[in-house]
Amino acid sequence: MERPNTPLLDTIADPSDLKGLSHDELAQIAEEVRAEMISAVSVTGGHLGAGLGVVELTVALHAVFNTPDDKLIWDVGHQCYPHKILTGRRDRIRTIRQGGGLSGFTKRAESTYDPFGAAHSSTSISAGLGMAVARDLTGGTNNVVSVIGDGSMSAGMAYEAMNNAGAMDARLIVILNDNDMSIAPPTGAMSAYLARLVSGNTYRSVREGLKRVANKLPPYWHKKAAQAEEFTRSFFTGGTMFEELGFYYVGPIDGHNIHHLMPVLENVRDAQTGPILVHVRTQKGKGYGPAEASSDKYHGVSKFNVITGEQAKSKPNAPAYTRVFGQSLIREAEEDNRVVGITAAMPGGTGIDMFGQAFPARTFDVGIAEQHAVTFAAGMASDGMKPFCAIYSTFLQRGYDQVVHDVSIQGLPVRFPIDRAGLVGADGPTHAGSFDIAYLGCLPGFTIMAAGDEAELVHMVRTAAAYDEGPIAFRYPRGEGVGVDLPDRGSILEIGKGRIVREGSTVAILSLGSRLKDALVAADTLETEGLSTTVADARFAKPLDVDLVARLAREHEVLITVEEGSVGGFGSFVLHALNDAALLDGRLKLATLTLPDRYIDQDSPAKMVAEAGLDADGIVRSVFKLLGREEYVAPVRA
Amino acid sequence: MERPNTPLLDTIADPSDLKGLSHDELAQIAEEVRAEMISAVSVTGGHLGAGLGVVELTVALHAVFNTPDDKLIWDVGHQCYPHKILTGRRDRIRTIRQGGGLSGFTKRAESTYDPFGAAHSSTSISAGLGMAVARDLTGGTNNVVSVIGDGSMSAGMAYEAMNNAGAMDARLIVILNDNDMSIAPPTGAMSAYLARLVSGNTYRSVREGLKRVANKLPPYWHKKAAQAEEFTRSFFTGGTMFEELGFYYVGPIDGHNIHHLMPVLENVRDAQTGPILVHVRTQKGKGYGPAEASSDKYHGVSKFNVITGEQAKSKPNAPAYTRVFGQSLIREAEEDNRVVGITAAMPGGTGIDMFGQAFPARTFDVGIAEQHAVTFAAGMASDGMKPFCAIYSTFLQRGYDQVVHDVSIQGLPVRFPIDRAGLVGADGPTHAGSFDIAYLGCLPGFTIMAAGDEAELVHMVRTAAAYDEGPIAFRYPRGEGVGVDLPDRGSILEIGKGRIVREGSTVAILSLGSRLKDALVAADTLETEGLSTTVADARFAKPLDVDLVARLAREHEVLITVEEGSVGGFGSFVLHALNDAALLDGRLKLATLTLPDRYIDQDSPAKMVAEAGLDADGIVRSVFKLLGREEYVAPVRA
Repeated sequence: MERPNTPLLDTIADPSDLKGLSHDELAQIAEEVRAEMISAVSVTGGHLGAGLGVVELTVALHAVFNTPDDKLIWDVGHQCYPHKILTGRRDRIRTIRQGGGLSGFTKRAESTYDPFGAAHSSTSISAGLGMAVARDLTGGTNNVVSVIGDGSMSAGMAYEAMNNAGAMDARLIVILNDNDMSIAPPTGAMSAYLARLVSGNTYRSVREGLKRVANKLPPYWHKKAAQAEEFTRSFFTGGTMFEELGFYYVGPIDGHNIHHLMPVLENVRDAQTGPILVHVRTQKGKGYGPAEASSDKYHGVSKFNVITGEQAKSKPNAPAYTRVFGQSLIREAEEDNRVVGITAAMPGGTGIDMFGQAFPARTFDVGIAEQHAVTFAAGMASDGMKPFCAIYSTFLQRGYDQVVHDVSIQGLPVRFPIDRAGLVGADGPTHAGSFDIAYLGCLPGFTIMAAGDEAELVHMVRTAAAYDEGPIAFRYPRGEGVGVDLPDRGSILEIGKGRIVREGSTVAILSLGSRLKDALVAADTLETEGLSTTVADARFAKPLDVDLVARLAREHEVLITVEEGSVGGFGSFVLHALNDAALLDGRLKLATLTLPDRYIDQDSPAKMVAEAGLDADGIVRSVFKLLGREEYVAPVRA
Repeated sequence: MERPNTPLLDTIADPSDLKGLSHDELAQIAEEVRAEMISAVSVTGGHLGAGLGVVELTVALHAVFNTPDDKLIWDVGHQCYPHKILTGRRDRIRTIRQGGGLSGFTKRAESTYDPFGAAHSSTSISAGLGMAVARDLTGGTNNVVSVIGDGSMSAGMAYEAMNNAGAMDARLIVILNDNDMSIAPPTGAMSAYLARLVSGNTYRSVREGLKRVANKLPPYWHKKAAQAEEFTRSFFTGGTMFEELGFYYVGPIDGHNIHHLMPVLENVRDAQTGPILVHVRTQKGKGYGPAEASSDKYHGVSKFNVITGEQAKSKPNAPAYTRVFGQSLIREAEEDNRVVGITAAMPGGTGIDMFGQAFPARTFDVGIAEQHAVTFAAGMASDGMKPFCAIYSTFLQRGYDQVVHDVSIQGLPVRFPIDRAGLVGADGPTHAGSFDIAYLGCLPGFTIMAAGDEAELVHMVRTAAAYDEGPIAFRYPRGEGVGVDLPDRGSILEIGKGRIVREGSTVAILSLGSRLKDALVAADTLETEGLSTTVADARFAKPLDVDLVARLAREHEVLITVEEGSVGGFGSFVLHALNDAALLDGRLKLATLTLPDRYIDQDSPAKMVAEAGLDADGIVRSVFKLLGREEYVAPVRA
């Protein structure tokens, strides 16, 4: 694969090499970073559009600020590829998101230039404020810069942080990276001029002087005078909302123009007293035609051909769970007009986009706002609707209190389709859906299902639509199904009942959810080792099928539970049930296989599952260990 | 106790009786509701100031709107006593917050006039939006009104909901109950006039006409014209921020003046098209001198003397855990200037207020903003500080994703003092700290302690201050300690090690946290029944003291674990450890006592603990049951 020609970038070992370069040279470096990034992502796949949108901003920030002493925090972190290229990680940029390679996000363990790791959105202002306060308490003088996208601004957490930063009058710079034209229209040269003007010392010192005068007026007029300045300025430059939150607003400026960016960033670096927000307009995918033309399709990409933009498509063996969910929900909605779909800025990832095409009036994407999504769903359920609130396992964590307080305590029948449950591959530990069984399973009255295959998911969608007694969740993994036939419409499952998938006599494997296929493979292996094996699909983590658990315990010598989830979940519930039934009597050999008590770095999903010991070989090894056989060594497979 | 004279209120059976009354009559009813509320709370204790502040608003809302068909949602719900008095619950108002009595918050199960229960803040706009959408989808015509305080507006959830409601242009009324003068200065008659003006049809239709004209201009000027109207109006009336979020802003108006309230509420009821925010200014504790004078002290009260305002004080036997925590943290901060205290609008309830008096510059109350609080703490920890992020167990749920993503995955040493862990009494199930062991225990690398008494808490504060390897939490109950001597400064506990408190031979009780005292009482009882009993204090839920657990299992016939927490927590970890050690061999009789799988309504903490089976008698009953003895019946105590 031919590498791009990058003569100037080749001279940059770390950000200090950017100091003293001319604006034109910095602009050239930006172009070279862009070419390098396109080349790298074409090999690895990954987040493309976000990084391309901030190439000039990244170069300008590292040229103006003294990183890593000045703290630079990238919100979400998926736009950090240019940052990684400039901060000593260029030689590994083609390992990004691969097993053993660079993370696809910022990561503290990876570089001192990553002062705070990210992946979930809207954390950067809170973290930056913490660093700014730590600096002030310890007498430091460094700058703290948080870069946050306009999408991330819809999350309440960003608002909480701005509100607090404004009230504390902390010295903190927030760069609003606005790649949606919705906040402010492009106003070109005038905009750049105004931004430079209001970010400069002259304007700010005049303003401070006026404030001092106004402060001598009676309080009412004091406030009105401040408002008048703010309103007049905001009227021309925008940003009223940020001013209301206590930030000094500068912008909007063209984020692809180094000549506009540099003086404004230098001004805010030198002039800052309280919190400043710099509004930068950028374009996702900037500088790469195919990505500019279709920012959605190039947000996260597979490997692609740089010339044509064509993405490599792996041929799926089976439909993705996401798609099966979307289709099944449409099917249920055709039968019941109380079925509605809700998501929080993940319509494509949850299949709610498909649902929205079929039922636009019954589809609600509330933005990056999981807390609101959950209680919004609860409000609907309280009025007789059947909301399906589709949020990834890892993001549902952000609506946890709402799940407890608004849904569970009130016993409202909100349905939670939980996509991305378990390990997720290249996105790594920040996106793994490891904890939902534990954090939902502890809630009284919560029903929790997990789909053993894609046909099971169809049944669970139907079951959830039919179930009106209280909250119900069903989890399923990222990626494609196992290839079973799909029914036209699901059947209603009996609540709290599992199923026997394969009958045996010595070993029982009780699988919850996605590990079913590997459990069946393990059973084949065990049979060849002379161990007759039953495989059961628990279907429900809660209420647990206690009869099934008891039967498996009584009728087998070995019982293995397996789930793609943490301790405190399904395996724990099985242990409690067995102890309550006095079946832990010294006869039964039992192992509860869960995710280990450590975070697993990104790799292929299969390798991550294997590392967790939850693949077929891991199950077999556990059985051997319980039986005291010599360690099981899997044969080398093609 | 003499009841107040309430001739007009006595004629009001339900809100429909308010229709057609004159403004003066409504004002009189408000005064009578106020007198009735003061009288009732003087007997029961409870939230006083919040309810007194919304008496007129409550009367006006029920007079203008057609509840319960029109949905009225009170945020937090602790201001709902006047609402309960007017909606058929006056006869039970003197049972509020008592066992078997009315809830201290709104509650769906209690009345059709409570369409959505609350207790945690900032949920009402999300829930109201859900109801508004449900109405529109089903062809309903009812109004939806959410009443939210200015404090609740600091939570990101409220922002998420407003942002979404504004974007959806949903027909929804939000009443901002502003009892802090910080948002808008009182402007009296002019304010009332402006509010009436801009809420009326005439102004709004002129505005719509102007908008239509402006829409014919080029887009840039279209937007500027809309801004100009908004800005000009906002400049005089305030509320720019709400307008930016897509709400039509009306206000501020005097929330204690029925004559001002009625026409504005009638206008917004009749004229609404998109979301409207009505800004109402009120005074906490209004109309009751002692509460007006000291809104803090009368936020939540004990029983009190109506004439003098003097609150009954129960004599504590021991210092409260909260106080012990505050003192211990001060002690550690004296030794280490990296120790800082953070809380989210609960300074008094966490003892951070005491800390703040000693170390104001190292104390951060970020407002109702748990998400931000956690990541703000993580930002500090990333820079070498030692943040103690003090949040009640129930409210830490709201920062859960931040605990996972920003603290745990990065392994940052944020300290979490968790007050109100376990059952909390009069505040009921919404405030119970039931789930923290489960939702934190599943996170890799998290250290979780629980204090068996107040001296243990002192040690745990010291231990947490000294521990720098990763996140560490320590939980302790609401209320006073057990009366043990307190050390001047704590000792550093060995991580993952419990302690034997009392040695026996047949029964072992392994307690985590607050159940230790009852475990010791149970041991006394068991001794008198001929069962020699060991009591151990686990100290750590994670890492678990596996050696201690194994020893207790090996050396006793019965092992009981007890915790004030849900399934999936400590008891589950013990089960896993025993199974891993092959100690569930049929010899050991084991019970894991946890909170039951249902929510427990408010009562005295002791009664709630007894209902959960976690008191001394409950422990003894469990032992008897495991041993196959006849059911244990506790003797009647004085």
